[in-house]
Amino acid sequence: MADFDYVSREDATEPMKGPKPPLDLSHHFSRVTVARKESKIKEFYKYFQIPGIGNLAGGLPNASFFPYDTLEAQIAQPERFHPTPNDPNDPSELLASTTLKKNHDATAASHITVPHASASSNPLQKIDLTTALQYGTAQGYPPLYSFIRQFARENLHPNVPYLDGPEIILTNGNTDGFSKCLEALSNVWSEERDWIRERPGLLCEEFAYMNAVQAGVPRGLQVVPVKMDLEGMLPSGPGGLEDVLKNWDESKGMRPHLMYTVTIGQNPTSGTLSIQRRKDIYAVCSKYDVIIIEDEPYWYLQYPSATGKQAEARGQPLPAAQEPHKFDKSTGYEYLDSLVPSYLNFDPDGRVLRLDTFSKTVAPGCRLGWITGQPGIIERILRITETSTQQPSGFVQSMIAELLIGPQPAAAEFAKKSKADQLAFSGWQTDGWVRWLSGLRGTYERRMTRMADILEEGRFQLKQGTPIKSSESDWAVISKTKMYSFDWPRAGMFLWMHVHFETHPLWGKVEGPKLARALWIYLTTKPYLVLLAPGQMFSPTPEISEQEGWKYFRLCFAAVTEDEVDKSSKRTAGGFRDFWLIRDEKELDDIEGTVNAEEMREGLMDLGMNWAC
Amino acid sequence: MADFDYVSREDATEPMKGPKPPLDLSHHFSRVTVARKESKIKEFYKYFQIPGIGNLAGGLPNASFFPYDTLEAQIAQPERFHPTPNDPNDPSELLASTTLKKNHDATAASHITVPHASASSNPLQKIDLTTALQYGTAQGYPPLYSFIRQFARENLHPNVPYLDGPEIILTNGNTDGFSKCLEALSNVWSEERDWIRERPGLLCEEFAYMNAVQAGVPRGLQVVPVKMDLEGMLPSGPGGLEDVLKNWDESKGMRPHLMYTVTIGQNPTSGTLSIQRRKDIYAVCSKYDVIIIEDEPYWYLQYPSATGKQAEARGQPLPAAQEPHKFDKSTGYEYLDSLVPSYLNFDPDGRVLRLDTFSKTVAPGCRLGWITGQPGIIERILRITETSTQQPSGFVQSMIAELLIGPQPAAAEFAKKSKADQLAFSGWQTDGWVRWLSGLRGTYERRMTRMADILEEGRFQLKQGTPIKSSESDWAVISKTKMYSFDWPRAGMFLWMHVHFETHPLWGKVEGPKLARALWIYLTTKPYLVLLAPGQMFSPTPEISEQEGWKYFRLCFAAVTEDEVDKSSKRTAGGFRDFWLIRDEKELDDIEGTVNAEEMREGLMDLGMNWAC
Repeated sequence: MADFDYVSREDATEPMKGPKPPLDLSHHFSRVTVARKESKIKEFYKYFQIPGIGNLAGGLPNASFFPYDTLEAQIAQPERFHPTPNDPNDPSELLASTTLKKNHDATAASHITVPHASASSNPLQKIDLTTALQYGTAQGYPPLYSFIRQFARENLHPNVPYLDGPEIILTNGNTDGFSKCLEALSNVWSEERDWIRERPGLLCEEFAYMNAVQAGVPRGLQVVPVKMDLEGMLPSGPGGLEDVLKNWDESKGMRPHLMYTVTIGQNPTSGTLSIQRRKDIYAVCSKYDVIIIEDEPYWYLQYPSATGKQAEARGQPLPAAQEPHKFDKSTGYEYLDSLVPSYLNFDPDGRVLRLDTFSKTVAPGCRLGWITGQPGIIERILRITETSTQQPSGFVQSMIAELLIGPQPAAAEFAKKSKADQLAFSGWQTDGWVRWLSGLRGTYERRMTRMADILEEGRFQLKQGTPIKSSESDWAVISKTKMYSFDWPRAGMFLWMHVHFETHPLWGKVEGPKLARALWIYLTTKPYLVLLAPGQMFSPTPEISEQEGWKYFRLCFAAVTEDEVDKSSKRTAGGFRDFWLIRDEKELDDIEGTVNAEEMREGLMDLGMNWAC
Repeated sequence: MADFDYVSREDATEPMKGPKPPLDLSHHFSRVTVARKESKIKEFYKYFQIPGIGNLAGGLPNASFFPYDTLEAQIAQPERFHPTPNDPNDPSELLASTTLKKNHDATAASHITVPHASASSNPLQKIDLTTALQYGTAQGYPPLYSFIRQFARENLHPNVPYLDGPEIILTNGNTDGFSKCLEALSNVWSEERDWIRERPGLLCEEFAYMNAVQAGVPRGLQVVPVKMDLEGMLPSGPGGLEDVLKNWDESKGMRPHLMYTVTIGQNPTSGTLSIQRRKDIYAVCSKYDVIIIEDEPYWYLQYPSATGKQAEARGQPLPAAQEPHKFDKSTGYEYLDSLVPSYLNFDPDGRVLRLDTFSKTVAPGCRLGWITGQPGIIERILRITETSTQQPSGFVQSMIAELLIGPQPAAAEFAKKSKADQLAFSGWQTDGWVRWLSGLRGTYERRMTRMADILEEGRFQLKQGTPIKSSESDWAVISKTKMYSFDWPRAGMFLWMHVHFETHPLWGKVEGPKLARALWIYLTTKPYLVLLAPGQMFSPTPEISEQEGWKYFRLCFAAVTEDEVDKSSKRTAGGFRDFWLIRDEKELDDIEGTVNAEEMREGLMDLGMNWAC
């Protein structure tokens, strides 16, 4: 942007004393967002609160006509799954069973009930259908909004540096959240009518979650990939962030002012961005006035054991531990303290919007999440929400609220319950929620270990050469062909496999992308029967797809049954082994059949659109 | 639009034989919508269906880690509320109690359970958490989508004239649905950078639901109100639709190609558009290539008794019944057949998009609805959904599906239930759903009657003059001052009151809008204590607000308790009576206090934004 009157923190003349308010970043608002009015609603609440007022103004249906008298559920106890250690040097319980057995019935469930009307007079604790299934406020159902807001500010991100800290707004999941961020922060641009110099850009990782990227493309955003390594985006060096922004060619569009990034368990690479890397990238974003949209569905799934286990498996020395960042405030939980913190904690400018979701911690079908960021931007997203989704469904909001907050002892319905029921359940509360998250991390960390262990073994094609006769003994000559390599996932749900097609016997005779396509199909046939996600699905530009994408597969260890993790991993390794024995080009043609390469890529990308692959 | 190559039906040369496909209206798609790709997903389903395939491609979490083992609810039986007659000439049960008493326990409830995993192999009948809380398809949860699609095509709109009939897509309620229609069918426009001739317009009724209108304003849409009477929009005459379109001044923007309309129980006027009026307006829309977005939250709440009761109350003759429209196909239900049908049934072009919602039939907090329209447009809205809301929450989709469709007898869980439980509930099915709707209509029709009855009596200020002495007796002289008038609501949740400020003693000394503001505040004070919605809240332009809006109040008989309908109506009438006794201008100033007129209007409009007022 050529003409914004943005003053960077460094240019300000007044001395720094204590936390400052976030920067005014309203020059980034889209024209549609600027045109939205502020709400004047608060000035009128007083009329609604007149005691005894007969409210004939609101256009609401009557709650006594809702056909649901209660909502109920059987829910897990927070201890259902066994956590793994926070300390990377403590392998003690890593391979324990996923579900707890001793002293605890892992299948035990509590019954929760959202009553039709709660007697609680505190709106932050009142969870009932009369309020939850009625029209509500766009920021979220008051009890749930209040719980999440406190959790976000005090437990997830207690060290946000700007004055008064961040605000939140509930969303219908992160796809909805990102869509609203785009609507708030980017203008629609089209080639046929707009100046190229006005074309907005969207920075993303070299391999990225395409549903998000695809949300920007129809709006005319130019997708601008930034080089990455196995950790994540590169702040500097060729193709790194500074390189891209500093050497930006304005004749190709506006220098990008928006970044979409997944920094923990990156999709698809499972990269996990260190604190130092965060600081370096943030500094570049601050310099070039870039807003960071941090999408973190996998944040809770950080695997401290991965580095050590990988080193152990490969007979390599354990890398030295990074010096942990010292923050003023603890999250209050050892487990949360052990996680790499959000960009929000390094964000004096208020240029980070963090997307959180219940999709991976409860279920994708919740369609429930929240955005955390500076109040000035959250307020604009609130306005967008009012004329689009209005609010997440009261069914999910009340059920999650009941699970987390529980029935309030003051409520009349609660008093009517049997003593046993009253004792049985009072909501997970923050302690229970964090315990649940650490248990979930445990289940996925064990799955990751199982898949990585099996694929570790299968990386090489071993071939016996002619034995060497010597006087003392026969020596077996084994040639080791590396078929693929990978880093053990440090987080998330995916293993990112780099396939070394250059070691295949047909390399040189057959083009790489064709080999890759044949391998993908080959793996879906008997007896291998595994479906992997090709790297083309995560290639934000056709160039990356053609040059790099085909060399990669993403393997998800989250979706299949635990048993199938082992079996599918073994069948995958077996498929590679056999595929590397193919020497006849004609055999490849038979495998490929009628599949068209471009169709395959597009079909799989569309799958990703629907399935958040 | 100057340059579309639209060919109207009349211009086509081929003879009409049987139903034709809908017109290609893709020239109306926004640039962003045109830029969205088609889905290639279907070509890849075959790989997912390979028996025994280990799917490591999809990025889904594992359903066994969802903390909900079941979702359950106590639900009403469809017979909970007493219907009113479909026949306007049958007043027999109009004043029956709202809840059925005889032979039926009105409070009886069934317990429904969505199990964690259902054994049903038919995806259209499989309702379980493993599927409902997982990522799903953007058109809707298969069992629910399939139920609603069939209901929309066969029971609601069985006479859609174009070939193969309409398609549907689920939405997160009608505000979301309308927002997606705007995104699909209008370009963003801004004064500072776009040609005025390109400014898109949005036709709406002279008084309208402002949340919808406000959704268009930030996108730069010009709001174009069309004159209405108590039935609804006028097709012709000064300020009517044809007048607006025919005499369109291109220097003010593009001739509007979008219409937002509520045709049944219009908000705020409760107008109900007759079939003849529909045909007339549709013809104009077809001539000028306008797409009709028909938002019908109140469609089920049509009150056949209103016309007769109003005539009776005023000692007027009953107007002759309109000749009913003869359709080829019945809806299958006497109640549905008796309702004024949607524009869809008069839409050979495929230019109608109908918005339906569960907000008034189940609960607003569902945030669940659907759009019905020609497949070519619905497909584009599907693409928009994929990168925004993705799908409505699985919590509400599965609970509504379970309520409507019920457990499938084939499912293993069902077999495990006791015989009593199995007999107790098998889903409402279409019969139950229609019965529920007719019962709901009954409850609201009775409320409407109670409010209208009371306000009918209070319309006049009666004042005794000097008695006339005669030889036979004393004659009381009563002067009748009409303070307000209204039509008995033919549908919906609102009574639209026209206040005759010109009969107030201070008329001429005090400006009308000031009188109106004082009355509104006066009514919120003791002993009247009622909050009405001023007409300014529903005025789409400042001109309408200033010239007409202040003369009206909207009274909602839906939200308060049944008891409060009577009490609030009486207090309202009492407030008018006492307000019309005020003769001192100073007294008005005391009432008004510090309230600023513009603040009041904006505050109330914002309330409407949040509360779907």
